[in-house]
Amino acid sequence: MQTIHVDVGQSHYPIEIGPGLLGDRGLLDARIPGRDLLVVSDVTVAPLYLERLRDSLPGRRIGACVLPDGERHKTLRTAAVVFDALVACKLNRDATLVALGGGVVGDIGGFAAACYQRGIACVQIPTTLLAQVDSSVGGKTGVNHPGGKNLIGAFHQPAAVIADTDTLATLPDRQLRAGLAEIIKYGCIADPALFAWLENNVHRILARDADALTHAIARSCRIKAAIVARDEREANVRAILNFGHTFGHAIEAATAYERYLHGEAVAIGMLIAADLSLRLGMIEPSVLHRIGALLAAAGLPTAAPRIGAAAARDLMKMDKKVLAGTVRLVLLPALGAAAVTADYAQAPFDGVLMEYFG
Amino acid sequence: MQTIHVDVGQSHYPIEIGPGLLGDRGLLDARIPGRDLLVVSDVTVAPLYLERLRDSLPGRRIGACVLPDGERHKTLRTAAVVFDALVACKLNRDATLVALGGGVVGDIGGFAAACYQRGIACVQIPTTLLAQVDSSVGGKTGVNHPGGKNLIGAFHQPAAVIADTDTLATLPDRQLRAGLAEIIKYGCIADPALFAWLENNVHRILARDADALTHAIARSCRIKAAIVARDEREANVRAILNFGHTFGHAIEAATAYERYLHGEAVAIGMLIAADLSLRLGMIEPSVLHRIGALLAAAGLPTAAPRIGAAAARDLMKMDKKVLAGTVRLVLLPALGAAAVTADYAQAPFDGVLMEYFG
Repeated sequence: MQTIHVDVGQSHYPIEIGPGLLGDRGLLDARIPGRDLLVVSDVTVAPLYLERLRDSLPGRRIGACVLPDGERHKTLRTAAVVFDALVACKLNRDATLVALGGGVVGDIGGFAAACYQRGIACVQIPTTLLAQVDSSVGGKTGVNHPGGKNLIGAFHQPAAVIADTDTLATLPDRQLRAGLAEIIKYGCIADPALFAWLENNVHRILARDADALTHAIARSCRIKAAIVARDEREANVRAILNFGHTFGHAIEAATAYERYLHGEAVAIGMLIAADLSLRLGMIEPSVLHRIGALLAAAGLPTAAPRIGAAAARDLMKMDKKVLAGTVRLVLLPALGAAAVTADYAQAPFDGVLMEYFG
Repeated sequence: MQTIHVDVGQSHYPIEIGPGLLGDRGLLDARIPGRDLLVVSDVTVAPLYLERLRDSLPGRRIGACVLPDGERHKTLRTAAVVFDALVACKLNRDATLVALGGGVVGDIGGFAAACYQRGIACVQIPTTLLAQVDSSVGGKTGVNHPGGKNLIGAFHQPAAVIADTDTLATLPDRQLRAGLAEIIKYGCIADPALFAWLENNVHRILARDADALTHAIARSCRIKAAIVARDEREANVRAILNFGHTFGHAIEAATAYERYLHGEAVAIGMLIAADLSLRLGMIEPSVLHRIGALLAAAGLPTAAPRIGAAAARDLMKMDKKVLAGTVRLVLLPALGAAAVTADYAQAPFDGVLMEYFG
């Protein structure tokens, strides 16, 4: 087991990572505050892990709220279902909401915890690789609005994050690879050693080797925690976490969020952003090739859908990260370093749009 | 005009109080950030003041969202209407929500601002006396749930509060007096000089004298701001603001929130809490008499509905401020001082319940 300590704003909390944590009564008892709990999960995860969690928490009063599965249910209406459950269980300010599931459960559960009685404790137990390395760390919570993703939300740091790598055993391959895309992202923007380690060990991740998973997740959480600690509210440096995401969002939006998983779209987006970094003279061709090769070894897509360069540009301009009409991008000055900029030559930008989307 | 500077957590903002502020272009321009605004108001206040506000803010892009009037509309569903308006106006993170109205508009508007894109700026322009002295100061925002008042919400400090005393000209007498109850509360718990001033000037408040209103509102905001600055999240000292409220909530709940305005119920609750303080030997009889006389001079009710002592006790135990089964009360060690305690003799408590409710 590895423990990462996160310090962000006035919050301090641990991320526990390793196999068997859902059966570790001592750990769960120490990390989950409150006598009264509401476990928020979904119809896919609850049948797999809810009883195991219950069994490991004797002496607590535990209610459950099982949500429908899927991003399309990440709405204010579903959050209202969680509020109803919190009220029905008569939970007070000392109670804790436990979010057991993937990113959708974590985002809705975290948002409900942020707003119920103006904020109760929340413990995140992410059960997907993506949630373990990304959405459960950093305190961003929220739901989607028909007008855009995550438009309604709150910053609410969890009391603890418990990432049991055993829960990844039941994760579909495609989702495992999508989570791996975010780990590759951390290597690209902040950690050349992690990137090199992944080049040698990606097969162990895909084989769900517990040691390899623990290492990769811990390394990723450490990077994200360090970035978030410096910039909780995304004033500046936190934006580098969006490497690959601006191109990726355009891909997701153009395909109605149906054809690609988020991590798959980000994988393609990272390749495009790396290619643009190369065209802008920031990196060597070998870096682009290494990124492409690692994404391919991870079984991730590297070819963009031909949605058209103009359509891609329009979709990117609708992104929250647009600054006064110019698309703000995360680029790579080197492998393991990232820079956020809206100040780059337009011709290479148009060039990659044409090459990948045109 | 008076300006109160509030420092709470990492927020610093001004409360501007005086007549004519809705026509003061320079002040509004300086205090309301952002080029794009959404003004949230209700069907009662919007026809009276929305155009005046618009006229005073040339050069801004101003959208409006007019809500139904009344506490029963303070719901998550109504907050969703505000989210829809924020999205429809394509407001980004630099936009500002302006809440123009009473406590309900301020609470819903503040909550929507807290959650939209995880938090945009909010300027409160309270148009009732209650909102000017209470709900617009302190950063508590939220909506009701069928299971309880303000169960869903956030702490979100405003960018500024602008209290134009001229807007009180259109306030019904009964609502003016209900707001006055909260001003009397500040005198009771924190400011014997304010209390004595009110004894001599309550008729000027009821006559809506601008100088008297400005003095009373400023004094009240100063007290509330000082308390909130010490305790944003109601860990301890902020609880003294609930003087009269625990008994008052029981009165409101027993009468289905229809018979009494909040301030009216609080007035009765303050008298009961003062009587209990007397029975516990904390204050002299003269203090109880002065409080009763001032409430009567303000035209506020001082007799409780005969809901029964047992019913009152049960309703008080459902209050959020109950600690392990004992009703936590705000009592008066002296006029102008308050203490929060769950440690008091039961016989005098039962005595006041019998006398007022039995």
